[in-house]
Amino acid sequence: MHTIIGVMGGGEADATTRELARDIGRAVAQRGWVLLNGGRDCGVMAASAEGAAAVGGLVVGVLPGDDLTGIASGVTIPVLTGMGDARNVINVLSSRIVIALPGGAGTISEIALALKSSRPVIVVGWDPGEALHRSGGSRLVVVDTAEEAIVAVERLLVQGTADGRDTGGATR
Amino acid sequence: MHTIIGVMGGGEADATTRELARDIGRAVAQRGWVLLNGGRDCGVMAASAEGAAAVGGLVVGVLPGDDLTGIASGVTIPVLTGMGDARNVINVLSSRIVIALPGGAGTISEIALALKSSRPVIVVGWDPGEALHRSGGSRLVVVDTAEEAIVAVERLLVQGTADGRDTGGATR
Amino acid sequence: MHTIIGVMGGGEADATTRELARDIGRAVAQRGWVLLNGGRDCGVMAASAEGAAAVGGLVVGVLPGDDLTGIASGVTIPVLTGMGDARNVINVLSSRIVIALPGGAGTISEIALALKSSRPVIVVGWDPGEALHRSGGSRLVVVDTAEEAIVAVERLLVQGTADGRDTGGATR
Amino acid sequence: MHTIIGVMGGGEADATTRELARDIGRAVAQRGWVLLNGGRDCGVMAASAEGAAAVGGLVVGVLPGDDLTGIASGVTIPVLTGMGDARNVINVLSSRIVIALPGGAGTISEIALALKSSRPVIVVGWDPGEALHRSGGSRLVVVDTAEEAIVAVERLLVQGTADGRDTGGATR
Repeated sequence: MHTIIGVMGGGEADATTRELARDIGRAVAQRGWVLLNGGRDCGVMAASAEGAAAVGGLVVGVLPGDDLTGIASGVTIPVLTGMGDARNVINVLSSRIVIALPGGAGTISEIALALKSSRPVIVVGWDPGEALHRSGGSRLVVVDTAEEAIVAVERLLVQGTADGRDTGGATR
Repeated sequence: MHTIIGVMGGGEADATTRELARDIGRAVAQRGWVLLNGGRDCGVMAASAEGAAAVGGLVVGVLPGDDLTGIASGVTIPVLTGMGDARNVINVLSSRIVIALPGGAGTISEIALALKSSRPVIVVGWDPGEALHRSGGSRLVVVDTAEEAIVAVERLLVQGTADGRDTGGATR
Repeated sequence: MHTIIGVMGGGEADATTRELARDIGRAVAQRGWVLLNGGRDCGVMAASAEGAAAVGGLVVGVLPGDDLTGIASGVTIPVLTGMGDARNVINVLSSRIVIALPGGAGTISEIALALKSSRPVIVVGWDPGEALHRSGGSRLVVVDTAEEAIVAVERLLVQGTADGRDTGGATR
Repeated sequence: MHTIIGVMGGGEADATTRELARDIGRAVAQRGWVLLNGGRDCGVMAASAEGAAAVGGLVVGVLPGDDLTGIASGVTIPVLTGMGDARNVINVLSSRIVIALPGGAGTISEIALALKSSRPVIVVGWDPGEALHRSGGSRLVVVDTAEEAIVAVERLLVQGTADGRDTGGATR
């Protein structure tokens, strides 16, 4: 079974954030993990998919719509939900670990839903606020760079069970 | 068509917050609005449903499960989703205005999802943090008391169209 | 707690089916039950909502979209899902008993999902086919008229527990 | 982008149906298509996943639960929805073509939802009934063997656009 790492972040993103997303997408794919995101052709979704696809990675895009309209070109496995923002729940449940780049209300909803379902969240380059730290405790980690994010993912995966089949506990 | 007001907040709540929820639930029902919440028999959900039901109000409970297990006794119209936290999206989309009492990650996800869908959110007695204010702008209002929350709802409803059929714009 | 009866059927319906839907909607409301349907302004949804609303009944419309566009005028409590056809699951889970008028693939999906979740289904004026009878057994009943459908609902409700809080068994 | 073929069928299945599912799963993977199913460790889901995984195929399992409990061992990419039967909608929307083996109410719901969303359905070794043929028209095809099912998929893919990006029309 593949290890799935979610990469969330704003549908609108500045050049710095898009470059961060590309770097993280590439690093995720290079380690053999599957990248999962919201699949749309904009912001962090498009840039992280592009980074992973450029090095031959698998990219699962969980789309809000019921067809391929507006899909990011880097997505290799489109999952069509037709469920709008309710697909945010699927994004975080399907991710063993969520990496959250700067974003708005949608990204905050994903961080909150991930913490509620006990998925660890690594926030890169911003802080979603004190209320989420109170809810998430040690499952919410803030780092500054793509490299630090990947190191944090590796550390969390080692702490979990080796075969990705842990169905409970800290990292699932 | 009834005007539906969502009341969100923690599944765990202290006595002060539960009393606040009861007061708001009662006030919502007394104005003839339908109260909508997550329907579970705990915290803000149970207390707000109880407050509304005590004065004969309609209470729509949008439950995460697929049967009536764990439903709050004040719910008069149970909507069973079987969708877990994905039902949070339904809670906010179905509410013309969301009132958010103190809560954790689930409540923050609902505030974020409401703002993303342009529903106004009135936060009572706490602050969900700067990141949501940046996303929500003037649609996110913070007040201190049940009375102020109800006044804010009335003001927003007056600003919207009179018959509750506005499908876009500031209050829908 | 109100008793919720689901009325499903085609978005396209001929005059005979629309009249059947209106009659059933009116009878549901006259018995004090809440009518629940898919909420759209066409076919069986519009006609059953109109029938119930005309005699002052509560009508819950579980809509596929995320705003009030295309809502049937008889709906008094709109539940907005933004989930497209996934809302069919909510329709049947929320109904103690489903009445299914003639319809196409959407209606068949609702009958199948209802039977899978052990909700009884009363089909009026058509037959959805042998495969569903094999799956549904005695939970799938076929009748010819609105009167027979209402009698069948009453009989099933009497067989269930009196207060509507049974969370398992034949009628939930 | 990968071509995704959905394989649906009963959670309970006899030995003949399980062998059919294994054969179809293997053939799907051998042609380089991604197999998508409901991901559970029983019936057609387990057997088709096993058939595809045995020859190194990618298997997307769209699970009803929110963790890996009860997942089929052949699934390589688990998508966790926490949405129960509402995930049936995702199964069919994400599939360019649905192959439906013998099954009960759940499988019938998937055939109906697929036809409603204009996905072609190839039924193998049984017939879901006249009502679905009326709804599906030429999009619902009945064949007898695994080989015929694969030939039917190939024919439909050739009729569609070459790059898998068609977002409307008969084969999407």
